[in-house]
Amino acid sequence: MTPTGAARPATGSVTVRALTLLEAFTREQPNLTLSEISRRTGLPLTTVHRLAGDLTEWGALERDSSGRFSIGLRLWQVAALAPRGTLLRELALPVMEDLSQITQENVQLGVREGTEVVFVERLRGQRAVKTLTRVGSPFPIHASGLGLVLLAFAPRSVQEEVLARPLERFTERTLTSPAELRRVLAEVRRSEIAVSDRQVTMEAVSVAAPIFERPGVAIAALSIVAAADTAQVTALSQLVRAAARAIGRSLRPGGLTSSDG
Amino acid sequence: MTPTGAARPATGSVTVRALTLLEAFTREQPNLTLSEISRRTGLPLTTVHRLAGDLTEWGALERDSSGRFSIGLRLWQVAALAPRGTLLRELALPVMEDLSQITQENVQLGVREGTEVVFVERLRGQRAVKTLTRVGSPFPIHASGLGLVLLAFAPRSVQEEVLARPLERFTERTLTSPAELRRVLAEVRRSEIAVSDRQVTMEAVSVAAPIFERPGVAIAALSIVAAADTAQVTALSQLVRAAARAIGRSLRPGGLTSSDG
Repeated sequence: MTPTGAARPATGSVTVRALTLLEAFTREQPNLTLSEISRRTGLPLTTVHRLAGDLTEWGALERDSSGRFSIGLRLWQVAALAPRGTLLRELALPVMEDLSQITQENVQLGVREGTEVVFVERLRGQRAVKTLTRVGSPFPIHASGLGLVLLAFAPRSVQEEVLARPLERFTERTLTSPAELRRVLAEVRRSEIAVSDRQVTMEAVSVAAPIFERPGVAIAALSIVAAADTAQVTALSQLVRAAARAIGRSLRPGGLTSSDG
Repeated sequence: MTPTGAARPATGSVTVRALTLLEAFTREQPNLTLSEISRRTGLPLTTVHRLAGDLTEWGALERDSSGRFSIGLRLWQVAALAPRGTLLRELALPVMEDLSQITQENVQLGVREGTEVVFVERLRGQRAVKTLTRVGSPFPIHASGLGLVLLAFAPRSVQEEVLARPLERFTERTLTSPAELRRVLAEVRRSEIAVSDRQVTMEAVSVAAPIFERPGVAIAALSIVAAADTAQVTALSQLVRAAARAIGRSLRPGGLTSSDG
């Protein structure tokens, strides 16, 4: 689950409860009063007051002159060390920039968090087709090229969890049959390429490849999103595969999550 | 203070102590064992074990197959909502890209955290001079163009704190006299431009301007860094001032930290 600002029962340790406060903040509402945080987290105002004080003391929250809280710069600095966030982005960015200049299309980098795709970076191409994604935001895993790659290389339990749920339909071409999705995932594992042809919007095709940290272990996926009516899928597949391999090589030796790191 | 991995006495609430664990992680060492976290934070191993469990439960930390911990993707997602981090970066980026293409020089965006400069974004220009900065990392406030702007518009107490400390010398041109620095800061407030001429390295000049959220309230600073032997300081000053104003306009109405947000 990702922060959505939705209230949910706050349980667990003091630390987990304090971190729950952070979930109240959203892109639409990055500055909140204590009452707003209380309403969004379902925690009593007195608890929110105390925990917000602790979070502010360390710098996870900041308070402005009007008394509203927001996510603090110190948390942002620490979070920049997330191997699957900023570090991955920095390694991938030069390759993504090349790919974007060559194709003039949107180029996207994503990782899997549970059963969701999280976009780590997106470069807008010169002749970019409209996409629905935003850096840091989640996206259903069964529809996009990135998602299909990440799902194909996810643990079996994650695949089964996705296949057991209703598969939301975005267009007439979205895969909504578990049996069909299962076949496509097997094919993605074999070919190491996923093509989402008008499965998210009727305007866009995305072509995605896994970024392997070690053989068979995909830490992330890279995609090119192009206009459905003009996309050269074969050429884009070759380009995205080469770029994903280049990023994979830059992860090694050691890898972002390896014990030799 | 920013996370440096240095041990410091852990005090305060459970929440603050848990967050202290996050300070153990560095760019050089983004994957740590519990013993390493214990050593770096000065907290007992049993405490680290319990708090790391809580942080992992929420997603502030992640554990890899070898048992090492790293900063979690969920924290990275939440931290992307820091108004002075990612949100500022997204508003500033289009203007910074224009500036980088026009000048072909390095373009930097920074904010002040206590008495330090934190770089929020840096674009490398085509004919870029070497710089020492890295996104998310701190930098002394009295030497760079960005730092001089941020210090000039900081509260008086922050200025006095910096002026009372030894001012580190980076080159023969670094300002190390408090009286001289005080004069320069007054001039930066008047002109709304800071020029750091070979004060960080003998190769580079930086020209910086404040980004005003409201009149007189500088939330950030923007700089161009150019080669000292060829830099056209007057032209760069005009460009950086215009760009900083454009970013400032995009912050309003409301502003990143305003109560109307």
